[in-house]
Amino acid sequence: VRVEPASVKLCDIGNTTFDFYEDGFRTKKSLASYIIEKSQEKIYYICVNERTAKELKNYDNWIDLEPFVDRNKYYDTMGIDRIAACEAVENGVIVDAGSAITVDVVQKGVFQGGYIALGLQASQKAYEEISPRLAYSYNFEIDLDTMPKNSQDAITYAQFGLLCRDVMHRSLPVYLTGGDAHKLKALCKGAEVDETLVFQGMKKIIQKAGLC
Amino acid sequence: VRVEPASVKLCDIGNTTFDFYEDGFRTKKSLASYIIEKSQEKIYYICVNERTAKELKNYDNWIDLEPFVDRNKYYDTMGIDRIAACEAVENGVIVDAGSAITVDVVQKGVFQGGYIALGLQASQKAYEEISPRLAYSYNFEIDLDTMPKNSQDAITYAQFGLLCRDVMHRSLPVYLTGGDAHKLKALCKGAEVDETLVFQGMKKIIQKAGLC
Repeated sequence: VRVEPASVKLCDIGNTTFDFYEDGFRTKKSLASYIIEKSQEKIYYICVNERTAKELKNYDNWIDLEPFVDRNKYYDTMGIDRIAACEAVENGVIVDAGSAITVDVVQKGVFQGGYIALGLQASQKAYEEISPRLAYSYNFEIDLDTMPKNSQDAITYAQFGLLCRDVMHRSLPVYLTGGDAHKLKALCKGAEVDETLVFQGMKKIIQKAGLC
Repeated sequence: VRVEPASVKLCDIGNTTFDFYEDGFRTKKSLASYIIEKSQEKIYYICVNERTAKELKNYDNWIDLEPFVDRNKYYDTMGIDRIAACEAVENGVIVDAGSAITVDVVQKGVFQGGYIALGLQASQKAYEEISPRLAYSYNFEIDLDTMPKNSQDAITYAQFGLLCRDVMHRSLPVYLTGGDAHKLKALCKGAEVDETLVFQGMKKIIQKAGLC
């Protein structure tokens, strides 16, 4: 499943950061402050931010990996970052826990579908807005085999317990990535945390396309 | 499980309404406009609104059912409306789909625990706030045995599909109540919609306590 990237410079561009990866080292730069410069150095990127995507078309050394992906394997509105993570694994459930939590299933290299849950911050805020009585932080130490008997556990179980139970019962390896991967790890016993999954996928796209 | 109420007047008081039930007829009055009057007519009630609860102590004909419930069977912060719904069934999963969606399990008359998910409106708003790309209405016609391959189905599956799969796999009858019960019915095949579950429970509390 795992491909150790050779020395190529990769960049995963989101709506707030340029996330660089090279030789196992990762550097994040804020989208607002980072200045794109012409250079001889090739940077292979994926980008979900439309404005930045347009700007990068002006730089020959920045190489967009999106055209090298077989988009027919996925669905139209699926983000390229989510697709890159799927490209990283042959068999597995990929849980990317960011502002939203995407769950994607890949079997024998084929995308089977996936779902999009609310992230920690967004869901916590939504509970608070329903009622101050539901304003709790989450408890990731709950036992998923027992039904909760207090409010904190009750909201954690609904928002993350059901999700973790689902991903663990699919008889596939589970990969956790994204900013809150470590928190979900407490609930998803046996899952592997891999914060470089998107980069692993990008490397595979480069190899398949024969780009380097 | 079902108890047909004799002619007693019941009232379930929430944070926005007085919800009356008598002889199978239901009448809702807004909390703001309804004027409580002294009368000879007994009204058995439960109330989650603190201010209204205090006010009602001044009226002899309004009889609070909360002291007649064995609260030790439940947990401290659990709402009396949720408890009343649990009292209605001997064996079952109760899904109360309102601003939040509570899921409670009762076996042989004993509360086993439960969880609290976000309601339709709250979760939809939370998705929208993460990204306009996630601003969808839900599709309650999705097939729960297939992983979604479009964004609308992907958010519906995460927010309600996992929940409905969970409640249906507990080998217990499933009762749907609350304002969005009918919407969830499309996903929870075999579930029974019963909008009077709380009142059924109140009637049982009255009978157990020998109040009439």
